[in-house]
Amino acid sequence: MAKINPGFLNLEENYLFIEIGRKIREYTEANPDKAIIRMGIGDVTLPLAPVCVGAMKQAAEEMGVKETFRGYEDSGRGYAFLREAVAGYYKSFGADVNVDEIFISDGAKSDSGNITDIFADDNIVMVSDPAYPVYVDSNIMNNKRVIYADANEATGFSPVVPDGVKADIIYLCSPNNPTGAAFTREQLKAWVDYAAANNAIIIYDAAYEAFISDAELPRSIFCIEGARNCAIEIASLSKTAGFTGTRLGYTVVPKQLEFNDGSNVLKIWARRQGSKFNGVSYIIQRGAEAVFTPEGQRQTRESIGYYMENAQIMSETFSELGIPYTGGTNSPYIWFKCNMPSWDFFDLLLSEKQVVGTPGSGFGKNGEGWFRLTAFNTRKNTIEAMKRVKELLSE
Amino acid sequence: MAKINPGFLNLEENYLFIEIGRKIREYTEANPDKAIIRMGIGDVTLPLAPVCVGAMKQAAEEMGVKETFRGYEDSGRGYAFLREAVAGYYKSFGADVNVDEIFISDGAKSDSGNITDIFADDNIVMVSDPAYPVYVDSNIMNNKRVIYADANEATGFSPVVPDGVKADIIYLCSPNNPTGAAFTREQLKAWVDYAAANNAIIIYDAAYEAFISDAELPRSIFCIEGARNCAIEIASLSKTAGFTGTRLGYTVVPKQLEFNDGSNVLKIWARRQGSKFNGVSYIIQRGAEAVFTPEGQRQTRESIGYYMENAQIMSETFSELGIPYTGGTNSPYIWFKCNMPSWDFFDLLLSEKQVVGTPGSGFGKNGEGWFRLTAFNTRKNTIEAMKRVKELLSE
Repeated sequence: MAKINPGFLNLEENYLFIEIGRKIREYTEANPDKAIIRMGIGDVTLPLAPVCVGAMKQAAEEMGVKETFRGYEDSGRGYAFLREAVAGYYKSFGADVNVDEIFISDGAKSDSGNITDIFADDNIVMVSDPAYPVYVDSNIMNNKRVIYADANEATGFSPVVPDGVKADIIYLCSPNNPTGAAFTREQLKAWVDYAAANNAIIIYDAAYEAFISDAELPRSIFCIEGARNCAIEIASLSKTAGFTGTRLGYTVVPKQLEFNDGSNVLKIWARRQGSKFNGVSYIIQRGAEAVFTPEGQRQTRESIGYYMENAQIMSETFSELGIPYTGGTNSPYIWFKCNMPSWDFFDLLLSEKQVVGTPGSGFGKNGEGWFRLTAFNTRKNTIEAMKRVKELLSE
Repeated sequence: MAKINPGFLNLEENYLFIEIGRKIREYTEANPDKAIIRMGIGDVTLPLAPVCVGAMKQAAEEMGVKETFRGYEDSGRGYAFLREAVAGYYKSFGADVNVDEIFISDGAKSDSGNITDIFADDNIVMVSDPAYPVYVDSNIMNNKRVIYADANEATGFSPVVPDGVKADIIYLCSPNNPTGAAFTREQLKAWVDYAAANNAIIIYDAAYEAFISDAELPRSIFCIEGARNCAIEIASLSKTAGFTGTRLGYTVVPKQLEFNDGSNVLKIWARRQGSKFNGVSYIIQRGAEAVFTPEGQRQTRESIGYYMENAQIMSETFSELGIPYTGGTNSPYIWFKCNMPSWDFFDLLLSEKQVVGTPGSGFGKNGEGWFRLTAFNTRKNTIEAMKRVKELLSE
């Protein structure tokens, strides 16, 4: 009898995006003449940088020629050319990361979801509330107990180290999805100290690091002293370089990181990947390499600049309205107080102003009464959406 | 205290390919003037088909233009254009597979390794001996008990249904890696009947199906009556179209397949993938789509034909020598009896004739005394290697 992993039966159905889709469909059918502006999308909208397109076309050509064809990549961890480029990128913002600690993957979601595989079921997992649903769901699937660290208005929607609560594995995300809050060095140092005191391991999601413009804020947990003894970092080109449909991420596991029994975490993750993953397409790895060239950085920073100007327009709107919010600087997300249940506000914003966002309650209990908008739409739509939001909230 | 998943401590180190690499290095250093022919490689050597290169270049171009840029793929299961192409391919050899049962992945290794995630730890897993190491390792990592079905000289190196032994999950691979044996319809039907009688689920690895030329042999488990109630199939373009470094595979989960509690397997696999995977690059999916066009089939069949001519040259050699072997027809592998411990033969073949193969004992206890060669080298090297093998084995 093939028996189901019971963890799957403990999952809550995540209706958030399904429900949003359903409501949009119903509204559109009832109001075919009204144009909807989608400010809920977490996806990018600008095309890939020309350097990436060029590099991938060239790599595809190489694959068609016997002399330059590439088959299996020996290590499955990523070609040296790309791991070296990523290590150089880390160095550029002062993070201490070595080439042989970098694992190239097909995206941050895969690694965030799979990393729990290397930990025993009886670890206690701490996730901030609100949070990206993958952290919770992947651990529930793996039959682990999940507890929460509150991130709410009082903490500026950054999770704070809880008093007297012990966790073995801690998921942190900064700049945060959905709240847009970015850790200061001091805030992040407090988490590193907590992990060190508890022999815990932090899984640090840095998928939005490229949106940090404030030089005082850490772009990586490895900018923080002591982090190499207690943290794994997961990052991605999805938002950094518009790779949401191109697929490439990377995970850093410091050499000295150990489990409670002294086993080496890097070796165990390599063993997991060696049996359950076979590397990223050579073509995509060449496209990713191009991101880290000077010209690639110039081109991709231009897109990030465009999104951040959208974010600024949004921040200014909420500042003017005197509405509490986080994000908008150092993050492509704006998280604001909607002063009513999140789903009620969703319905109101859609029906009155034809703007779609994401109800905060979909990310956890602390999200109730809050609402997420993103900076990934066009300038024109962002300006129009803010005009409509202003009308609605000034009424 | 972050505790390691104890499954990882139960893994045996797989030294096979590391040991082969070490021995080649040592030999080359001691004998720099001797040219080695590698007949152990499981990797392809011919370049990608021109249609695939063209499709990927065009897709890369599209990604650089705002109007045709693609971000996240909604379902993460693969674009409809590719799933439809795969469904059409299945139809071409009489397998009953629907578009919405196909999950596009980054390769058969990922899916073979990850599929165990959806099953409870107390399932009994049956793997043939010898076998591709991923089946065993991924289940040991997930703390499952693995038992073996013998595939040996007496069974023609195809695993046979064991008497009185119950398993819940059964891994089968045909044409087999490493033995080259391909199931007949009758042999495979016996496994489907066994699975049905035990409410077990078969994980069927069809990565080498494209090498089957005998129309009487099943190219898919879904060519067998009853398989839709008890099987999942995993396949890949790695060997079919030289995608080892391009990375694309697909997994088929029939709609009616159920766990013991009545839960739907397709829905649970979709949930797993939805949280721990985010789809394959659009560019690579377009390259894969091209494989299934008439011109793509013509071009990729040409490469397979080349490898199969190599295989024929190898088969003829062993037939002439009167040495027992399996594979060589309907498979790119030749598996022959070396009449001494596999590693001793490895050393002998390397030191006397500078030909490298893979010791059968590395794939399981039934592989001891047997040896694997592959048809993926060039014609010239294959002919030269067979000349040397003949010299060695005629002595």
